[in-house]
Amino acid sequence: MAKHDKVTVGVSTILNPVPVVMISSAGTDGRPNIMTAAWAGTVNSEPPMLSVSIRKSRYSHKLISETGEFVVNLVSKSLCKACDYCGVRGGEKEDKFKSCSLTPVKAEGLEYAYAIKEAPVSISCVVKSVTELGSHDMFIGEIKSITADSYLLDEKGKLCLENARLVAYNHGEYYLLGEKLGFFGYSVASEDIIAKRMGKDVKKGKK
Amino acid sequence: MAKHDKVTVGVSTILNPVPVVMISSAGTDGRPNIMTAAWAGTVNSEPPMLSVSIRKSRYSHKLISETGEFVVNLVSKSLCKACDYCGVRGGEKEDKFKSCSLTPVKAEGLEYAYAIKEAPVSISCVVKSVTELGSHDMFIGEIKSITADSYLLDEKGKLCLENARLVAYNHGEYYLLGEKLGFFGYSVASEDIIAKRMGKDVKKGKK
Repeated sequence: MAKHDKVTVGVSTILNPVPVVMISSAGTDGRPNIMTAAWAGTVNSEPPMLSVSIRKSRYSHKLISETGEFVVNLVSKSLCKACDYCGVRGGEKEDKFKSCSLTPVKAEGLEYAYAIKEAPVSISCVVKSVTELGSHDMFIGEIKSITADSYLLDEKGKLCLENARLVAYNHGEYYLLGEKLGFFGYSVASEDIIAKRMGKDVKKGKK
Repeated sequence: MAKHDKVTVGVSTILNPVPVVMISSAGTDGRPNIMTAAWAGTVNSEPPMLSVSIRKSRYSHKLISETGEFVVNLVSKSLCKACDYCGVRGGEKEDKFKSCSLTPVKAEGLEYAYAIKEAPVSISCVVKSVTELGSHDMFIGEIKSITADSYLLDEKGKLCLENARLVAYNHGEYYLLGEKLGFFGYSVASEDIIAKRMGKDVKKGKK
């Protein structure tokens, strides 16, 4: 069978890999909750915005709709199991912060929502719009503030996310990021730049 | 410094890791183009939908607006350099399929757009809506058809994306997926299921 022989497969949500993030929020009563989302992504650069799609039945849908706020917490290897737990358990009757031994901290820039202290990066968002798509409602959030673990900053104050051991979600499975293949612009960069950025003698190779 | 001491960093598009996909399209004149997007993601399950955010200045914005069609091609390790190239070069005057030695094939289920033969998975989409967000316009696409390299299907016809060597994008760098950490539901699964799915004797550990 030739290398790129194609078959048609059933229509599904096949875009991969996707992020997997822990969305923390709270109601006006102050009780914090966490849900896990893979239907999330950046949707705009200026101003910075992201989207998260949530089913109407989720408790977090109620909280985020009520307050107009949520926090996107990135997921590192040490948070992976808690991340999965928050995606399979409901928050209406269970305190998931407690179940997962996580620490709610007031989210910077927001009035109600909490962030997860154990997350390497927490992104405070204000809801800009909600669009009903079918199974999910898509919340677009404008990013108001970002906090990060201080160890992720280098001596020049640059955020080095490659040290955060972030997790990606691929077709139902959680993966650590592995081998670095390149960087934005490497296909047209000089060999010197490539060697410097990749930390080794790398041939530019063919496109 | 304590482990989760926090610093506030500048507001930016910090959600990571994100997918990186090659969006192929064509105008009514039939000339195909490719652009690379990281501002892409799944936004709905039923019916399956995804979003791609594109700057108005991109040639692909014109083509997709004209035809209402585009293809999302997943990126494997062997496509990574071409993927980067299609993200840094414009398509109005350059035939990027030719420059990258890629093969346009008619996209299944669409009238104008082409898919990339060398991509492991190609997702044919019809534009459902376009929303202006600022720097980018967000196109929501309804998935009409999916083709995949036949070697990715197992003997039961199940698509095994873990064999596709997919690439993720993390803060300006391209990464292969690395160590598998778990699967959806593993935080509440029995040790037998975990051992079976993870292929080794894995302790469930703490949440």
